[in-house]
Amino acid sequence: MVAVRVDLNISLDGFATTTDQTPENPFGEDWARLTKAYVSTKTFRERVMHDTSGEGTTGVDDRYGKAYFEGIGAEIMGAGMFGFHDNPDDPGWQGWWGDEPPFHAPVFVLTHRAPRPSIELVGTTFHFLSATPREALDRALEAAGDQDVRIGGGVSVVRDFLKAGLVDQLHVGIVPILLGRGGSLWQDLRGLESGYSVTSETAESGVIHVTFRR
Amino acid sequence: MVAVRVDLNISLDGFATTTDQTPENPFGEDWARLTKAYVSTKTFRERVMHDTSGEGTTGVDDRYGKAYFEGIGAEIMGAGMFGFHDNPDDPGWQGWWGDEPPFHAPVFVLTHRAPRPSIELVGTTFHFLSATPREALDRALEAAGDQDVRIGGGVSVVRDFLKAGLVDQLHVGIVPILLGRGGSLWQDLRGLESGYSVTSETAESGVIHVTFRR
Repeated sequence: MVAVRVDLNISLDGFATTTDQTPENPFGEDWARLTKAYVSTKTFRERVMHDTSGEGTTGVDDRYGKAYFEGIGAEIMGAGMFGFHDNPDDPGWQGWWGDEPPFHAPVFVLTHRAPRPSIELVGTTFHFLSATPREALDRALEAAGDQDVRIGGGVSVVRDFLKAGLVDQLHVGIVPILLGRGGSLWQDLRGLESGYSVTSETAESGVIHVTFRR
Repeated sequence: MVAVRVDLNISLDGFATTTDQTPENPFGEDWARLTKAYVSTKTFRERVMHDTSGEGTTGVDDRYGKAYFEGIGAEIMGAGMFGFHDNPDDPGWQGWWGDEPPFHAPVFVLTHRAPRPSIELVGTTFHFLSATPREALDRALEAAGDQDVRIGGGVSVVRDFLKAGLVDQLHVGIVPILLGRGGSLWQDLRGLESGYSVTSETAESGVIHVTFRR
């Protein structure tokens, strides 16, 4: 059964994106704290950093890290996650995921700048769509074949898909810190739990993994 | 070492109080869902409901339920938790905790209606103070002797004490539901975690128990 999946790291107060970026620290200190446990996993180091040293954690966080990459046939993301906002006017800009992005699947980028030509990189092709969540999902499901579709982010895109009832599995890694500001995942999602079963477990790092499954 | 403690049930989106009360259902459906696991424990049934049948859950939730009542020498609560708002003009009103409230310790109620005479009930005396968090805590610590002080609620009172840096141990039972509205615990508490260690575990009921300890 093909599923539409979301995986996000959030703070205990529900923030999935951070606002303390500076030119010197383009991700910001909050982002580093929010993703520390995930970035420390063996899977993240291998899959995203192309680190072949074999180092990294192998506990509960890594199990979720591995699951993140398994069985995904296509991904949908917002313009911000692709990186449009960093170089809005450069038609040659390929986003900030590098020459070999970690997706290894077709990625559908939601942007009002579409139509624009697709970008083919090593293992990943980015397509650009101006579409509703439902329309984008239909395109991604078709591309994914018998595999799952991931709604990658950012948080407002994820919320749009959750509100539209299009997500089958939502996994959040809740980091026990309070950010107090940023993009909130839970805003306006009253009653989301109905129709899902919810399970949770705590990793060695202290991250609480909560999963909503239909 | 005497500690200042807080215990609250909150939703996954951080709401500790609910807003769907009606005359027919004075606590509201949301409140029932927020407290269901706690109200089901053997300890709650014995201590709050005076139910001597021995029924109720005895797992992880009950362990936290028991800890809630252990070693508390005094409690501080807001006017709303005492019940002032229900009968604001009745000088004989004794709050809505019944003839034998579950506290079994002196309770200091923060209210701008003070001074007013204390109310002595079975095992619990309510005192009324118009005071800052620090002043109220000094009174409660004196009354508690070598035992702990609990900041009982409501959520805005708890937030005042957290912001003032007066809480040594914060336990939240996070219920995996999204309420979307109500009194938010986490609002304006950025960085609360610093100075605390944070642990968590999941109960059989699905409630995630998170504890901040100094």
